[in-house]
Amino acid sequence: MLSFTCDYSEGAHPLILKRLAETNLEQEPGYGFDRFTESARALIREACGCPEADVFLLVGGTQTNATVIDALLAGYEGVVAAETGHIAIHESGAVEFCGHKVLTIPGHAGKIDSAGLEAYLRWYHSDPSKDHIVYPGLVYISFPTEYGTIYSKGEIEAIRAVCDSYGIKLFIDGARLGYGLAGVGCDVTLPEIASLCDAFYIGGTKVGALCGEAVVFPKGAPAHFFSTVKQHGALLAKGRLLGLQFETLFTDGLYFKIGREAVEKAMQLKAMFTANGIPLHINSPTNQQFPILSKSQAEAIGEQVCFEIWEELPDGRLVTRFATSWATGQAQIDALSAIVANVKK
Amino acid sequence: MLSFTCDYSEGAHPLILKRLAETNLEQEPGYGFDRFTESARALIREACGCPEADVFLLVGGTQTNATVIDALLAGYEGVVAAETGHIAIHESGAVEFCGHKVLTIPGHAGKIDSAGLEAYLRWYHSDPSKDHIVYPGLVYISFPTEYGTIYSKGEIEAIRAVCDSYGIKLFIDGARLGYGLAGVGCDVTLPEIASLCDAFYIGGTKVGALCGEAVVFPKGAPAHFFSTVKQHGALLAKGRLLGLQFETLFTDGLYFKIGREAVEKAMQLKAMFTANGIPLHINSPTNQQFPILSKSQAEAIGEQVCFEIWEELPDGRLVTRFATSWATGQAQIDALSAIVANVKK
Amino acid sequence: MLSFTCDYSEGAHPLILKRLAETNLEQEPGYGFDRFTESARALIREACGCPEADVFLLVGGTQTNATVIDALLAGYEGVVAAETGHIAIHESGAVEFCGHKVLTIPGHAGKIDSAGLEAYLRWYHSDPSKDHIVYPGLVYISFPTEYGTIYSKGEIEAIRAVCDSYGIKLFIDGARLGYGLAGVGCDVTLPEIASLCDAFYIGGTKVGALCGEAVVFPKGAPAHFFSTVKQHGALLAKGRLLGLQFETLFTDGLYFKIGREAVEKAMQLKAMFTANGIPLHINSPTNQQFPILSKSQAEAIGEQVCFEIWEELPDGRLVTRFATSWATGQAQIDALSAIVANVKK
Amino acid sequence: MLSFTCDYSEGAHPLILKRLAETNLEQEPGYGFDRFTESARALIREACGCPEADVFLLVGGTQTNATVIDALLAGYEGVVAAETGHIAIHESGAVEFCGHKVLTIPGHAGKIDSAGLEAYLRWYHSDPSKDHIVYPGLVYISFPTEYGTIYSKGEIEAIRAVCDSYGIKLFIDGARLGYGLAGVGCDVTLPEIASLCDAFYIGGTKVGALCGEAVVFPKGAPAHFFSTVKQHGALLAKGRLLGLQFETLFTDGLYFKIGREAVEKAMQLKAMFTANGIPLHINSPTNQQFPILSKSQAEAIGEQVCFEIWEELPDGRLVTRFATSWATGQAQIDALSAIVANVKK
Repeated sequence: MLSFTCDYSEGAHPLILKRLAETNLEQEPGYGFDRFTESARALIREACGCPEADVFLLVGGTQTNATVIDALLAGYEGVVAAETGHIAIHESGAVEFCGHKVLTIPGHAGKIDSAGLEAYLRWYHSDPSKDHIVYPGLVYISFPTEYGTIYSKGEIEAIRAVCDSYGIKLFIDGARLGYGLAGVGCDVTLPEIASLCDAFYIGGTKVGALCGEAVVFPKGAPAHFFSTVKQHGALLAKGRLLGLQFETLFTDGLYFKIGREAVEKAMQLKAMFTANGIPLHINSPTNQQFPILSKSQAEAIGEQVCFEIWEELPDGRLVTRFATSWATGQAQIDALSAIVANVKK
Repeated sequence: MLSFTCDYSEGAHPLILKRLAETNLEQEPGYGFDRFTESARALIREACGCPEADVFLLVGGTQTNATVIDALLAGYEGVVAAETGHIAIHESGAVEFCGHKVLTIPGHAGKIDSAGLEAYLRWYHSDPSKDHIVYPGLVYISFPTEYGTIYSKGEIEAIRAVCDSYGIKLFIDGARLGYGLAGVGCDVTLPEIASLCDAFYIGGTKVGALCGEAVVFPKGAPAHFFSTVKQHGALLAKGRLLGLQFETLFTDGLYFKIGREAVEKAMQLKAMFTANGIPLHINSPTNQQFPILSKSQAEAIGEQVCFEIWEELPDGRLVTRFATSWATGQAQIDALSAIVANVKK
Repeated sequence: MLSFTCDYSEGAHPLILKRLAETNLEQEPGYGFDRFTESARALIREACGCPEADVFLLVGGTQTNATVIDALLAGYEGVVAAETGHIAIHESGAVEFCGHKVLTIPGHAGKIDSAGLEAYLRWYHSDPSKDHIVYPGLVYISFPTEYGTIYSKGEIEAIRAVCDSYGIKLFIDGARLGYGLAGVGCDVTLPEIASLCDAFYIGGTKVGALCGEAVVFPKGAPAHFFSTVKQHGALLAKGRLLGLQFETLFTDGLYFKIGREAVEKAMQLKAMFTANGIPLHINSPTNQQFPILSKSQAEAIGEQVCFEIWEELPDGRLVTRFATSWATGQAQIDALSAIVANVKK
Repeated sequence: MLSFTCDYSEGAHPLILKRLAETNLEQEPGYGFDRFTESARALIREACGCPEADVFLLVGGTQTNATVIDALLAGYEGVVAAETGHIAIHESGAVEFCGHKVLTIPGHAGKIDSAGLEAYLRWYHSDPSKDHIVYPGLVYISFPTEYGTIYSKGEIEAIRAVCDSYGIKLFIDGARLGYGLAGVGCDVTLPEIASLCDAFYIGGTKVGALCGEAVVFPKGAPAHFFSTVKQHGALLAKGRLLGLQFETLFTDGLYFKIGREAVEKAMQLKAMFTANGIPLHINSPTNQQFPILSKSQAEAIGEQVCFEIWEELPDGRLVTRFATSWATGQAQIDALSAIVANVKK
């Protein structure tokens, strides 16, 4: 059955499988000391324009968020995130498991804004009981957000400026970074992302890899981060698996190409839904689209296509999610278009 | 350069890569709800003779140890392990990170014995200050151990009996389980392992997989273990990667075949070292061998072969480790034999 | 200077000091095995109508909340509380430090209601992604709340019924329990409180003791709770200090008398503010009153009286807090009345 | 019945109770902002010769150890202690609960030595797998130790030098500091203790207070330590209770006087045991003495006197503990002497 459920439904980009097969019997050291990881690190540093960056390859997104956030925070500190932030809701309390509170502020289509952040930090610092409240020591944003939206360069700069004025750090969750950078209207580049935060990661799992997230510390990693990774159960023995995948993704611009093609497909979806009179819950410029379907529409389409139901609106209609990825072919888009066109009638 | 450094130097067993390629574009749900994982679970339950077992596929060993131990322990409890246990030394404090103390007792070539365990538990329960001491709530053993040794069925039964008499649980770290079950003189089967403990895992990373450890709870998993896995950052989005690997390993007995062949190669190494007058630190019946080399021998061999230096003896000689795996070819054994034979002279 | 800042400004009720002096040189075992603690436990069980209850004496409120919540929750569970709950805001993340998320739902003058709780639990259990969300395993309410309000018996019963229908636990923070039970219109008794929850505590620090909170588990404590208390740094070596204080408070109804007298004084304050045309932010029936003062009023009164500024309203007026306690004398009430009367003009 | 069980059997030094009564109705701010705490801090800074020190008053010993150690360590670090260290055995895993491993090294009568410490740190730093092992980031010693022994100034200096050479910190558990400084042959002063470590605490509970431990950071506290204390449940609302006790203890040298008198009494015990032919397990120069009694002696004395049984020797004799304190009167010493003299015959 046709599926637009998510961007991690298939295996890996074929080039990755090809490279895995080619290098399979090479003997390499474990734990990220292999030549593929070394190469991936160099390629990522170059792509980020950060020759001094520390780069670590971890396995999954929740793991990466918890490990990096824990490493960046002092024991008494918490992390500020949008109420809809992935760490705030959908990670089974992984950050709290590490002992830190997720401090939420209102978001707008998944994004926080510098004014809201500033108001929160000002409130904290002016509260006479502040020492009984968790210290906000880090800001977490996702790029793109859980709703597919992206920050403009100016918006990130404004958030960075607020962070600087309070002397705290900024971390960007880039689980879908490739789709964000390729987002329609995106005016920020990978090197600019790198220059604006203390840590971010380049998502592999959802952008063509079997698994893997590349954490970048543009100004250098926290001391002994390797041990922290091990302590959090996030160190892969066969680090070569991660190294080779990121080496492949950052060779000849594959990572960016995947992003562009998936977003291009998503824009076809967007236009198609709109053309069929189906409204979109959010004006997403990236690979996730959120058409609002009536229950009968959802049922009819659901007979032939898998997608995700995001939430039910008060009027009973359903916000749904259709995601494209590196693996989405034109034939799938066309097939979906035909189905939706029929349903609509 | 020839390498016997460890059993995770190469990629994956070729059948796994083949299957990855064949199934790459199939769309499957994430987080372990894919058909490969379903199939792997069924195959593992069958191989364990545990139709009621809960099976979860995690990514790596330290992660698995910490997640399972944390799930099995109440907050106030600790886990008993040999002083040389992997969780006691080489996991960067991952168990303590979860809030639990590792309570160590003396080991013998990596193994604890039921008498030593009983003595420890008796001491705890008879100490008038015991409520100020961490409650031993679980016993951890590795099979094979970090020194390549294996427990006999009788030894595990005796440990189990002690656990039962104190009402506590038993967890077996099977990071190298395949090599243990194929160990020379091994008199315990996979179903017997399963019947004797509350949880154990079937190591994939070191036995032919790119990554992956299959946790088996023969009597059922702790409540909401899925959420615990997510909370610990151990849930893989593309669970299919793990599912397909274990499906492959447990089809047509591949897992056991890998174990047998690697141990057979290790026995060749053992005989070869002995024949060359090189003593073995431990009489290991599995895929890891620990020849004791003089520094000059180690230097000479080290020019052509990679291996690990385990420790320095008081007399200056070095305990070294040579590991075989699914990937060790006869040519490599022969090449090493030639090198050692020359060095010896 | 006159102070109504809080209910922990003075030392202890004079009877407590008297008893400390009388018993000072008696030699007693440590860690709560002294005769005073034994006696206090019996008196508390009797007052709660719970002959089978387990009673533990801890030192402070945040400590008690974190220790009890951690003991009641499985590792993967979180605790549901009002957005204004003390554990959600003013405990420096002590619950998160123990690894658990505080899941907040909207409150009304500090109280949650059963409908809001039910809606939250229903949402959780119907969300397809629920296993990625923290499991709500316990409900926390405070009696009285941080805003001085109290739940009716029917309201607690309704919350309990929701907890029961989802199979989860209820914990009541009674840091100011004495003032709540004496609250105007309170229709719930101590034995009823005990019968409706899985754990609660009888606050000593704010109700006449130097320190101390008596945790009651009406249906029995979690296994090895003593060790959990020690592990959380909450076990007092000289447990006699806590035992003697609670023995004194629960002899001849002192605890309830303190509550009644302080609330009676607070009602005088309430009437006095109202008579002077000063509105009250919340209709509090307990020992905390929240008059809304203009900035000039606050300044004028503040020259002669200490009180707390709670928050600034959008119109610039200040919500303030005036608290009475066991130590508040009629002379202090009269002095404040005279000051406010003058300021008002 | 006569008791020498421990040094926390009675209430508080009478001067403390007197001061509590005198100041009971004074209204003071909570959480350590009262005038007594302010005064106590100044007196302690002066006694330590550390005008720049940060001083915090916590409630109990295990709580203080866990809170300070957690604040001094980075997330990935562990603390080195003697195998017999209180944090290693008798604190129910409070340090591990905070996520840190206690790394043990052999002790001698409760003390570690600089050579053993150096060997451990050298081993760690030379181990090729060190990044998989917990980083030793802090050294913990107790003064006096759990066996009543004390370090010489030279011994602490040597340990400090090892810490410095590896760039790690030193923390001294002074739960019985008063008895240590008054120990026979003690050649180190309070200011010297302060100058040699990064943090230590002055035990109150066992040296005349109802409760309370004064943590001193001679070079300044970790950032936001107040919030850390709150987060660990270690912040007392009525901080005045702690403040007034330490103010009293550090006025007119009371703390030192208590120490001297208790040690003088302990030396009488030591001489008395020896004179009666009863050997001492350890040559303790402080308030704890460890006579070795036959079982019949222990039984006979135990009929009239409480004391603690420490351990059973292989030959069946019992190591016992007799502790003196601020509350031990000459009459008690004389009574015990008479009893022992009779038993001996």
